[in-house]
Amino acid sequence: MAQKGDLLSFRPDIKVLDATIRDGGLVNDFYFTDDFIKNLYKANVKAGVDYMEFGYRADKEMFDVDQFGKWKFATDEHIREIVGDNDTDLKLSIMADVGRCDYKNDIHERSDSPVDLIRVATYVNTMPAAIAMIEDANRKGYETTCNIMAISNAKESDIEKALEMLGKSCVDGIYIVDSFGSLFPEQIRRISDQYMEIADKYGKYIGMHAHNNQQLAFANTIEACAQGVSYLDATMSGMGRGAGNCQMELLLGFLKNPKYKLFPVLKFIEENIEPLKQAGVEWGFDIPYMLTGQLNQHPRAAIAAMKEGRKDYTGFFKELVEKD
Amino acid sequence: MAQKGDLLSFRPDIKVLDATIRDGGLVNDFYFTDDFIKNLYKANVKAGVDYMEFGYRADKEMFDVDQFGKWKFATDEHIREIVGDNDTDLKLSIMADVGRCDYKNDIHERSDSPVDLIRVATYVNTMPAAIAMIEDANRKGYETTCNIMAISNAKESDIEKALEMLGKSCVDGIYIVDSFGSLFPEQIRRISDQYMEIADKYGKYIGMHAHNNQQLAFANTIEACAQGVSYLDATMSGMGRGAGNCQMELLLGFLKNPKYKLFPVLKFIEENIEPLKQAGVEWGFDIPYMLTGQLNQHPRAAIAAMKEGRKDYTGFFKELVEKD
Repeated sequence: MAQKGDLLSFRPDIKVLDATIRDGGLVNDFYFTDDFIKNLYKANVKAGVDYMEFGYRADKEMFDVDQFGKWKFATDEHIREIVGDNDTDLKLSIMADVGRCDYKNDIHERSDSPVDLIRVATYVNTMPAAIAMIEDANRKGYETTCNIMAISNAKESDIEKALEMLGKSCVDGIYIVDSFGSLFPEQIRRISDQYMEIADKYGKYIGMHAHNNQQLAFANTIEACAQGVSYLDATMSGMGRGAGNCQMELLLGFLKNPKYKLFPVLKFIEENIEPLKQAGVEWGFDIPYMLTGQLNQHPRAAIAAMKEGRKDYTGFFKELVEKD
Repeated sequence: MAQKGDLLSFRPDIKVLDATIRDGGLVNDFYFTDDFIKNLYKANVKAGVDYMEFGYRADKEMFDVDQFGKWKFATDEHIREIVGDNDTDLKLSIMADVGRCDYKNDIHERSDSPVDLIRVATYVNTMPAAIAMIEDANRKGYETTCNIMAISNAKESDIEKALEMLGKSCVDGIYIVDSFGSLFPEQIRRISDQYMEIADKYGKYIGMHAHNNQQLAFANTIEACAQGVSYLDATMSGMGRGAGNCQMELLLGFLKNPKYKLFPVLKFIEENIEPLKQAGVEWGFDIPYMLTGQLNQHPRAAIAAMKEGRKDYTGFFKELVEKD
């Protein structure tokens, strides 16, 4: 497909979504201070970011509220404590995982909620359950997306079927998710074209959520963008599981829409991310994450290796290859 | 131009060049231990790397030998102490900077030297001097490349003229050099096509040397590769000036030629790079480098900020923008 946009102009269809709390929460079990969240909200408003994701809405029957910070459950009440009536241009989202969200009870009518967008995360094999959740959220008045995870391990034909199902559903947008950080730009371009075809056919938009295991999160995000993908996920300093995500500071430095401002992001990082790092919260590219990415594996072994402070890269590599 | 190669096959024309000593030497003033260099040489041989660059051959009249480690001057004698007769498949290179190398006296006949390849580094406005050096090295029997630096600040028409001059010269290869780490993949593809046109017309090869200011060194290297660029620079753990270079461990994880082995690279990093980092030698992506990259500036202000341990990213950003 031909490139959409160029390096001197901007596309008004581009939306930037800040996923710092949601993906970053996977690093610190969602234990953020209220100040951190308030400052993040203000920074996103000032930076011209389009959406801010406040976390997961996890089922409290399944997950112990004493084991996680509140943003794993991101209730409407918690969000309201931060944003009040959210009298800004910033829209709010939460993520709802298939099988881990009691959506019938916990997702309320849009008119009673500060949330604008419900992002339903699913694997390709649980698409009917995802679509049921999407239909529920749509009925309640929300914008919805479907984030199909771990596609680097799924068959193209299964993805094609899932996309057709989504195309015919009421979902507003569909996300490309490189969960393992294993995809290369040339694959992202091909996948973007595949998703964009469905988008054009059924009137949906496409989003991109990248991981940085091979230092390709930013590159893959802007390559997807050049193919027409318009919803772009990023996090402050790339905070996110394992190797982290596309960095907001890189993405806003690239996008040419004059409404986006880098300065508030730098200020947020200086005042809020640096203290977090100094307190010992760790994420970002490292060799164990690179290796699981190269091998197209879930990063859990790498996360464990990093937690143990392992530097025996050769030993870790042998373990990965042996169980591969 | 159509993509060359795909993700399952390999192109036998690809050559990987390890520039750890040369670009990494800019981080520690070339003070490497002999053990480090010997281990690097062995690792490159085992990993199937094609070329290893031993440093600059800087003019001892211009640079004080007491201010730098020996690899800034990389004499034939120093190299021989490491490699003996270099009875391996690994070829050796040095870099010679226009205006900073007494090439007539310091570059000897190829038959008297362990070096195979002389890489002449130049700005676009010193092309005649570069070509004089290339002709000298060619006459002495070496393979040669011309590495045109800082092209993100040069006019396309000047680059076009430089490429035509090089096309008609005896040079063997021409390098794309993103000195400031400011170029995006879509620019790299366009530039690669421009260079490849000259390569095809005059029978040269094209190389890629990337910097990681925007975490695009690896992405830009493999994108150039997909356009037909065949000489790919990388360094161990990306060791190189400022934000560093394309990481060897990422590149060898991508390339499919079965002669390339990741394991010796991981072993080298574990045993030699980690101690270097623990001793306080610093390089790699950080926000000050990102900012100079985004602004298409030389990284020197960022290098100074990092040395001072500055974390006032907003203050640093304002300084850069004011003098921009």
